[in-house]
This record gives sequence, C-alpha cells and structure tokens, in this order.
Amino acid sequence: MNLDFASDNAGPVHPKVLEAMIRANDGPARAYGEDGWTLRACEALREVLEAPEAAVHLVTTGTAANALCLALLARPWDAVFCTDVAHVHEDECNAPEMFTGGAKLLPLPAPEAKLDPAALERALGALGSVHGPQKGPVTIAQATERGNVYRPQEVEAIARIARAAGVRLHMDGTRLANALVQLGCAPAATTWRAGVTALSFGGTKNGLMGAEAVVLFDPALSREAELRRKRAGHLVSKHRFLAAQMLAYLEGGLWLELAAQANAAAARLLKGLGLLGWPPLWPVESNLAFVAMPRRVHRRLFAAGASYHLWGPETGDPDEPVLCRLVCDWSKTDAEVDRFLEVAAGAC
Amino acid sequence: MNLDFASDNAGPVHPKVLEAMIRANDGPARAYGEDGWTLRACEALREVLEAPEAAVHLVTTGTAANALCLALLARPWDAVFCTDVAHVHEDECNAPEMFTGGAKLLPLPAPEAKLDPAALERALGALGSVHGPQKGPVTIAQATERGNVYRPQEVEAIARIARAAGVRLHMDGTRLANALVQLGCAPAATTWRAGVTALSFGGTKNGLMGAEAVVLFDPALSREAELRRKRAGHLVSKHRFLAAQMLAYLEGGLWLELAAQANAAAARLLKGLGLLGWPPLWPVESNLAFVAMPRRVHRRLFAAGASYHLWGPETGDPDEPVLCRLVCDWSKTDAEVDRFLEVAAGAC
Amino acid sequence: MNLDFASDNAGPVHPKVLEAMIRANDGPARAYGEDGWTLRACEALREVLEAPEAAVHLVTTGTAANALCLALLARPWDAVFCTDVAHVHEDECNAPEMFTGGAKLLPLPAPEAKLDPAALERALGALGSVHGPQKGPVTIAQATERGNVYRPQEVEAIARIARAAGVRLHMDGTRLANALVQLGCAPAATTWRAGVTALSFGGTKNGLMGAEAVVLFDPALSREAELRRKRAGHLVSKHRFLAAQMLAYLEGGLWLELAAQANAAAARLLKGLGLLGWPPLWPVESNLAFVAMPRRVHRRLFAAGASYHLWGPETGDPDEPVLCRLVCDWSKTDAEVDRFLEVAAGAC
Amino acid sequence: MNLDFASDNAGPVHPKVLEAMIRANDGPARAYGEDGWTLRACEALREVLEAPEAAVHLVTTGTAANALCLALLARPWDAVFCTDVAHVHEDECNAPEMFTGGAKLLPLPAPEAKLDPAALERALGALGSVHGPQKGPVTIAQATERGNVYRPQEVEAIARIARAAGVRLHMDGTRLANALVQLGCAPAATTWRAGVTALSFGGTKNGLMGAEAVVLFDPALSREAELRRKRAGHLVSKHRFLAAQMLAYLEGGLWLELAAQANAAAARLLKGLGLLGWPPLWPVESNLAFVAMPRRVHRRLFAAGASYHLWGPETGDPDEPVLCRLVCDWSKTDAEVDRFLEVAAGAC
Repeated sequence: MNLDFASDNAGPVHPKVLEAMIRANDGPARAYGEDGWTLRACEALREVLEAPEAAVHLVTTGTAANALCLALLARPWDAVFCTDVAHVHEDECNAPEMFTGGAKLLPLPAPEAKLDPAALERALGALGSVHGPQKGPVTIAQATERGNVYRPQEVEAIARIARAAGVRLHMDGTRLANALVQLGCAPAATTWRAGVTALSFGGTKNGLMGAEAVVLFDPALSREAELRRKRAGHLVSKHRFLAAQMLAYLEGGLWLELAAQANAAAARLLKGLGLLGWPPLWPVESNLAFVAMPRRVHRRLFAAGASYHLWGPETGDPDEPVLCRLVCDWSKTDAEVDRFLEVAAGAC
Repeated sequence: MNLDFASDNAGPVHPKVLEAMIRANDGPARAYGEDGWTLRACEALREVLEAPEAAVHLVTTGTAANALCLALLARPWDAVFCTDVAHVHEDECNAPEMFTGGAKLLPLPAPEAKLDPAALERALGALGSVHGPQKGPVTIAQATERGNVYRPQEVEAIARIARAAGVRLHMDGTRLANALVQLGCAPAATTWRAGVTALSFGGTKNGLMGAEAVVLFDPALSREAELRRKRAGHLVSKHRFLAAQMLAYLEGGLWLELAAQANAAAARLLKGLGLLGWPPLWPVESNLAFVAMPRRVHRRLFAAGASYHLWGPETGDPDEPVLCRLVCDWSKTDAEVDRFLEVAAGAC
Repeated sequence: MNLDFASDNAGPVHPKVLEAMIRANDGPARAYGEDGWTLRACEALREVLEAPEAAVHLVTTGTAANALCLALLARPWDAVFCTDVAHVHEDECNAPEMFTGGAKLLPLPAPEAKLDPAALERALGALGSVHGPQKGPVTIAQATERGNVYRPQEVEAIARIARAAGVRLHMDGTRLANALVQLGCAPAATTWRAGVTALSFGGTKNGLMGAEAVVLFDPALSREAELRRKRAGHLVSKHRFLAAQMLAYLEGGLWLELAAQANAAAARLLKGLGLLGWPPLWPVESNLAFVAMPRRVHRRLFAAGASYHLWGPETGDPDEPVLCRLVCDWSKTDAEVDRFLEVAAGAC
Repeated sequence: MNLDFASDNAGPVHPKVLEAMIRANDGPARAYGEDGWTLRACEALREVLEAPEAAVHLVTTGTAANALCLALLARPWDAVFCTDVAHVHEDECNAPEMFTGGAKLLPLPAPEAKLDPAALERALGALGSVHGPQKGPVTIAQATERGNVYRPQEVEAIARIARAAGVRLHMDGTRLANALVQLGCAPAATTWRAGVTALSFGGTKNGLMGAEAVVLFDPALSREAELRRKRAGHLVSKHRFLAAQMLAYLEGGLWLELAAQANAAAARLLKGLGLLGWPPLWPVESNLAFVAMPRRVHRRLFAAGASYHLWGPETGDPDEPVLCRLVCDWSKTDAEVDRFLEVAAGAC
C-alpha cells in the first residue's frame, strides 16, 4: 500500500481531468491559446473569482506563475517583500530574480509562516533613497508553506500597508483551494476583494496534470504578461490541453471537492498521530501536517516504504523527536492514512 | 473537412501517446523527474541517438529547449551566430536573450535559410577585442524554417568552423524527425557525430502533447542545465507525463513514422499544386511547403475555411502571386490534402 | 613628434577643463550629485540645448550613457533598431543587452552608416506578433561611426517613422559637437526639435577627462534614470568633478571650439592625402577620416611610429590599397598632421 | 568652519593625487588601460598586496567594484551570503543582482555588523537541492559598515567555512586602509593570506577623486573581469587618470597615512563626545563613529550647520538619545573636530 506523503505533486491526475484532456484531442485546433477551450477556461476562472475583467494566462508550473506575477509587479531595482520561508524565496532556484531582471527578495522573519503587517510596514518604511533597493511588491502564500491560512481581514491588513506604500500584492495560491475549503469564504474574499492584484492560481498540486493560472485583477497588465510568458518559453503551443484541465477542474466545483478530500486526509492523519502521543505542532488548516515524532518512528516508517520530508538526520538518538512534514493530496485514501498510522503505532 | 495547414502545432496528440499518458496515471509517483518513466525515457533517447553518455532533460516547449541550450553554450557577453530567419531570432520574443542573460544574436544573411559556412567564418573572425561581443555558439535548425535540410557533411562543415574558433554548435531539432526521414541517415549522423554539442529534440510538432528534450552530448553541462531549467520555471512537477510522451514517441520508431506521414502529405500537396501550375519554390525536404499562388486562389481557399500563413496582404491584384507556407503534421489525410487541391483548382 | 591617430580617446584633457576640476577641489562638498557644481552643470546643458525641462544625469563613459538611454526606452522583449555598424551594436560588449535586461539589437544594413528610413519602416512593420521581439526604440549616432552627419531633416524623417510606430528615438551623441560644427545648426535642431527623446551627450572624446551626459527630453524618465544609473554602479560619489568638467566644457562654447579644431585637423589630413593621390572615400564631415592607401604606405607610417586602425592585414601585396581610419581630436596640431603627410609622401 | 561629518565621499581629493593627475595630462596616451600609468599602477598594487600574480582592474566606483567581484564569484542561481547591514545588500540599489544576472543576496543577522561563522555554516548547509538557490560566494566588508574590523583570524575562519562548502570569499575593502591602520598588519594578512579570492580595494573615500580596484587573487578570473567591466560600461577610455590616482595613492604609503588621519579624527571626536557624557556605542576601530546623543544636541548641531546621518526623527522628546553616525575622512582637522565638540557641549 502506498505510503507516500512527500508531496502533493506526487499524486495522479484526477480521472475527470484526464477525460477532459482526451476529449480535447479531437482533430486540429488553433495553437498558442487561440482555441475555444482556452476562451472557456479563462471565462470559467473569471466567473469563479467573480472578476469579470481579470486577465487570465495559463502556464504549466507554479514557479512560472509566481515568477511571472512578480515580474509584472516589480521593477529590477525593487525589493520584493516575503516571509523567510516563502516558496518564492527558498524553493524556486532564483526564478523570481531571473524573471524580474534582478529584483531583491527581502525575507522578513515569520515564525508562523505568515507575513507580519508591522514588520512589513517597518521594512517598507526603511526604503526610499536612490542608494538602496526601492519599495516593491509584497507576496504571500495562501495557504502558507506551513499549512496555515490567512483570514480575509489578514490579507486586507497587508494589502492596506502595501497600498499606502504605493506597491502591490501578489498571492501565491498554489494551495488556494485548500485554504478556501478551510476558510469557507468566496474565492474573491481572500483575493481581489482583499486587495490582491496578481494571483498564482494553483491546480497541479490538486489533481491536474500540470496547469496553473496567472490571474491579473488589473487587466492593464495583460499584454505584458503575454509577452513575458512567451519570452520565458511558457507559451504552450497545444494550449487546449492546459485549458481542458482547467475547465474540468472548475466544473461543478471539482477543485474544492478535491481540496476538501486532501484536507480531510491531513486531518485524519494528524488526529491519529495525536492519539499516538504526537500532537500537531500547530492547528492544521490545509493539507500539510507538521508533527515531531521520535526518530525510531521515522525509521520504522521509512523501512515500511513511507516517504516524506524530515528536518534533521535519520540517524541519532532514537527517542529524540524529529520534525516532519506530511502532505496529502486529493487521492489519499482512509486506508492509506490508517496504514501509515498503524506502522507508526507499531514503533511506539 | 479540415483545411488547416497553418502549423504543425495545431494537430492532435497521437493516440499511442495519449494512451501512454493514461497508463502513467497510476497512483503516486515521485515528482520532478525522479520517477521510472523519466529514467526510461532518457535512456530511450540516448539509445536512439547512440549517445550513451548524453544528458537528457525534458521540457514542455521548443522555445524553452532552445533557450536553455543556448544559455548553456553562451556567456552574456557573447554573440550567438544564427541565420536571419532563425526561429530563435525571429519567433521567440527574446527568450534566448533572457535565458543567456543578454547574449547578442547575430543574424547572418541566409537566402536559403541555411547558415553559410564562409559567412560564419568571416563573422567569427571579426570578433575578439574586449570592446565588442565575444565569439559564442552557433545555432542551426534541422530542418530549417524554410523546410530544407542540412546534409551531415554540411553540419560537419559548420561544426568544424565553430570548433576552430573555440565555440560550440547547437541544433534546433524541432523538426529533426522530418529531416531524418528525408536524409535517411542515423540520428547520430546529423547530430553529435557531425559536431553538435547541444540538441533541442522536438516532439510537440510531431504528435506529442507538449514534450521536448534538451540533449547535451557534453554531459558536463548537465548539472547547470538542471539548475537553469528549474530557475526558468521549466522543471515540471508531474514529470512522468512528459516522460510517458517521449517513451511512446520513440517506441517502435513512432516518431519517424509520424514524420514520414507529415512529409508525405506535404509532398502530395506540392505535387498537386505543381500540376495546377504553381511549382514549389524550392524542392520540399520536410513537412513545410512554400508556394506562390495568385491572390484569387488564396481568397477562394480562405473562403472555404482553409488556414495557413501568407506573406503579403489578402487584398490587391487577384492575379498577383503571393507566397504562402503550408504545414502538414502527421495527422493530415490524403482526403484533406486532396480537398485543399480541389478548392485551389476551382479558383483557376 | 606624435603620430597617434588611433582614437579621440587618446588625447589629453583640455587645460581649461583641468583647471576647473582643480578649482572644484575645495573642501568638502555633498556627494552623489547633490552639490552646486552639478546643479549648475545640468542647468548649463539645458540652456545649451534650449530644453528647460530636460533631465540631465552625468556618467563617466559613453557606453554607460548609451546603455542607460536604451534601457530607458526599451523593454526586455523589444527590438532596438540600429545600423549594422552602430557602436552600440559592435563596440560595447553587449552593454545595451545587459542594461535593457535582454532586448535585441536589430542591425539594419547601412552602407553609409546612416539609418535608412525605408529600411527602418519595413523592419518595424514586420513586428507585432507575440511570438517575435516587439517594436522598440531606434538609435542613431550623430556623427556616425563613419564620420558623416545626419541633417536635421534626416533625423526628423527617422523620428517620424519611430513615432508612427509608437517607439522613441535615441541619439548617440558621442561626437555631437563635431556634427554640430559641420552642420552649423543649433543643438536643439538636431536633437529634441528633430524628435530625439534621449541623448547621449559626449564629452570625453572632445577634451574632457571622463564625463558624458544622459539627457532626457522627456523628464518623466528622470527618476528611473537615477535608479538605473545607481544600480549600474554609475552614480559617482565625488560628483562635483564630473560636473566641473561639463561646466568648463560648455562655458563660452569651448565644446564647439574644440570640435572645430578636431574637424579642421581631419580636413587638413584628408586634403593632404588627396593631394598624394588617395582621395577620401566619402566627404569628411567630422573628425574621422577614412582613406585607402597602398599597404607600403601604411608600413612606412607604422615604422615611423604612427598608429591608427587598419582594415586588413599589414602583410601582403605592397601596392594593394588598404582602408584605414584616422581620428583627430582637439589637440592635433598642424605640425603633427603635416609630419604624418610627409611620412606618407615619402612612401610614394 | 566646516562641520560636515556625513560621508567620507564628501571630502576633497588629496593634493598629491591631483598633482599626479595633472602630470599625467601630457599629450596623447593609449586609451582603455593600455598605457604606462596603468601598467605601473597595477604593478604597484600587486607589490603592496605581496601578490605578484593577482589581476588588477580599475573602476570609478565602489559599487562597480563590488558588483563586478560578486559577478565573478556567483552564478545567477546562487545565493550570496552577507550580513544584513552589508553595503552590497542595503546601499547599492540591486547592483549585485544586476551584475550577477539575478543571484540572491542572503542577509544573515549580524548585530555587530560582522558575519558570524556559525550562522554562515548553517546557512550554507541548508542549501543544495535543485529547487533552492545554490551555494554561492561569501562577502564581508573590511572595515564593516559599523566601523569595526575583522582580525585576520576572523577572516580566516570565514574563509575556511566558505572553502569547505566549495565557495569563495569576497572582501569589500572600501575602507581597507582604515582597517589596516587599526590592525597594524600587512595588507596580505587580512586579504589573500586569510583566504580572500576577490577584493574591492577602495580609494575614493580616502583621498582619491574616483578610483577603486578590483583585485583578483585568482588570476584565472581576469579575462572575464575585463569583459564584465566593459559590458557594464566601466572600462574608462582615458584610463591613465584612474591609474595616476592609484599610483599617487600607493606611493610612499600615502593611502595608509590618509587613513591614519581619518581614524585619528574619529577617535578624537569620540573621545570628546565621551567626555561630554556620550560614550561610543562600541569601540571605534576605523573612521566611523557611532554615538547616541540627546535629540536637543543634534538640533543644536544641525542649527550650527553640521551634517551627518541620524537614525530617527529630528523632532520629538529633546532628551531622548538618538543614534547617529559621524564619518571622518583624511581631511578633517583637529579644529573642525573641536568646533563640533564645542557646539555639542553648548547643548548640554
């Protein structure tokens, strides 16, 4: 039985998505996004976001979506404000720096992975002289890299500070669906209504094969986005297959349904681990579970074929607690979660 | 009936390729290319190219493959030598400039779309001073943007000049399969054995959904290629689906079979147009057909729903010959070609 | 006696300029251009150019001035239109590509070193699709790299085409003074009144130690220019010494006086060479002289210690004419020119 | 009397330096550093540094020197490790990001402005995966931005960690002379013998008009340095005037003499302020003095025409201590320092 909790990128494509791709493979279609699927997918996303004017551009990876959004909001001499655990800062191999032409990511300490409005305000206030980097955009992840979620008013507070400084707000929504399931609010409430200008709308981690959307609530950015996408090699020729994924994803709310499954699996996992004596390090709010288990439990789990991310060496004191991250995607079954718990229990 | 001859990007995915993708959607798999499909696909490509040491990295677009290859061979202060009709120069929105960090593409006049070795030698010889751009890589397209093909000894002649100048050779093989069908030679003969260091191995225009390979015959470039790919947002997470495409493409020689179909369709088209009085402008050697037909023929074809690229305005003297480009992919049927000819004949 | 005709960069600083620098070395002064000399220098330049709103920023090199101007006018995905002998294309080691973040210089054939309006119009007209580079700025050199000069109406014709295409015009005025002496027109007539948006106003080749000005006739570009200058390491701290040079240069028309001396020396040289049987290849219009002399004459001159640029090898048929470029700066004396002619005559 | 303690960039050029520049203005000389002054200046610097193989390249600004050094040591996908108060991070408007092509500066907390070896080791250890930035160079300032100084063994400790991680060490020596005066050690002891690969050797803040040296103790980097310097517009044409400055600076130890004067002035200032009741915040080790004085003292000083940097608003509680930075260059006289103290005393 599969015990892979390493990444929501490891999961399969949802059958409805694959079927939509198969249906789209019907004779020739105009290339580069000038096809009907793309028109409909962009329209569907605008509807879901209640943003009839938004510009939508599809790409294949989250890193591309984030780097394009930041490049649209930052000039090369700007600072980009993020948390010190931000994916754009730690896990994209300097893609934002490449796409922006050399902007500087300024990581602000964020013990709980959320940007602190007061720290942001201070950091923005320190800039302005021609000698230093200039005030540039702010970027936050919803859900965060630690699995927690910004309330709409938290996003608004950050957006207010950004606006006051004359800069704009980007949201890395690679796990936006997971956050929305937790928040129970409309997509608009945590994005454009809260002050977000550019959104990376994720799909790949939540049942798609490889499709993300750059959503620009300021449509004046749209033409530059198209040019930046092409220049970065991210304008896909057989574009209908990206669009078909996105259409199936949004249709009937599949995207939220899948995120709910993922979140439920993470909750089940954390509940079980808590009963075994390892409570969650913080309340889980999406599909990421962080827990500290004794090293011997990890060893037993790895021996049984489990995989996930560990902070610290596999060898050492068997009783020492070691932090780990367990990720569930939509495809995790109760049986898989329970088998993981069973193996862990066996190591107690 | 479909009369779309605009682009080989408009065609569908071949059923065998789609089936392989469907088969790959089987439970979780390690992300980012650390899966078995990827291992096998890279190995299969090395076998086809008879290059057991080559490094292979998959990406989703031809522009990404070309720009990555050039970035591996050129430093930011280099000139990159190409023809003045090169796709990398004319049709990639400055992607090579972005990926190389600002190298200069130096277009050499090439009336027949092939790089002239003597012109290349002169251009390389003119550089060297610290004040100008430095000698950098050479890039050629096989088949070219005009549909003709370099003989192995033509590639060798260019590679010899590059080597003598201390620079390396890139081949844009977006239509490599079409060229190989025409040449009847081994893939190695027109690539690494002829002196190519980096190859963009095309697939998307020839029946794949979106998969190209960066092939580095100098494996020392491999780690940098990985980092550049990630930094450009081109490391796909659910990588098995790229790999599954490539595996199906190479298995049993499907890639050459599809290219042969495309070339045959172009030949049938050109033969028919020749019989109508519009001979090919040059002998067709791949799946691109260039012909000059009177404007009234184009109008009739467009009225009938045909689509393809025209050089010049649709309005004007109805008898004036206007150049056009007709592209056939693997999916073009005899019936479709014949219908196109029938409409054209009706305008005579 | 000095026979160096290699470059106008080889000449000394004019005594009046040096004296102004010495006078400026008087106690402390605010750094980074916030001093009185800088204020006065910028004002003086605006007066000379009859452009009271223009923004002026000083730098130390012509390459910096050109690259900054182009970066202000071009986006990274743009084409920059220039002649195929443009200094920005051939002699700046890809500085424009670096400063623009990867724009593409598109060299247009220019047998006489002047941009052909018709060729420019065609080249601009060919762009527009998202796949290719976008329409970007036009750049011309006044005087050109071949020493000839655009008439105001020639600049206007180019500016008109640029404007119609929605792009702007840069003038590389590294030898603007030499051109103005020849034209006898007001500086405004060949710059902003003719449609130039950004001007590299040269000084170093004409008697300064190292000072050039970026002049922006659209002052809205000024803040970005400041930031780009700092980011490129070109904001000089002891800025008063740049400003003092520029002040002395403009005061009492010294700049035009020096250019007149340089042009006169070149004319005397060419006249003398013509009498020896080697007429100018084209009418000289500034301080650059191009002439083809038999190889044995060059050998004799080099043996006598002369230095200048030769197109072609020093060895070969002694009677074969070989093209050379002779450059005069303000400091060339009649005696030096005549000695050069004497040596050349001795080889006849 | 002058009370400007804002910056060592505000000071004049030392007379011996200016005289050397005047002497260099003697007829024509080969441009772009191919003159005798440049040869001698580079040789003199190698001697002073006891580094006969080192490559030396002159530029006009410290930002250019730093950004070039970092670009030679970092690849675009690297992290560059620095303190969170580093000049390269805070005061160069993203020049390092521009020159490196998008490397990421990773600021490490440094309460005393010195890089903590343990923090560096941890930060380097956290990198390695293809997803994040890669291990890149380390940069430290000698003296630091807070005026203190690394002991040779402190530099060695940092270099050892860098070397173990396979990365190299850059030293921003904009105030190297001031540090050496304090340390009393040979220049080599705190640079290449301690493990520094690339050094920005400062001059402008210490009596030059505008000349800094990029010193590469690994001469294999020299050609790339030349090309990067040209491409950045930093290859000065009338190069002899940079070289003449550097020659005069090194001759007879003028550079250390001037730094000793600057350090002595800062010490006199701090001693006097201490007697007035405001002790230095940390022991002064170069020409920068940091002290917290009550707001009313600052007001009195500003009213008397003094200038210097203040952290915090000028208005507020008159008794609240507010931190300031006072900078002395070589030209500060005892009389000027004493006058400053007198005004400050008057506010007690």
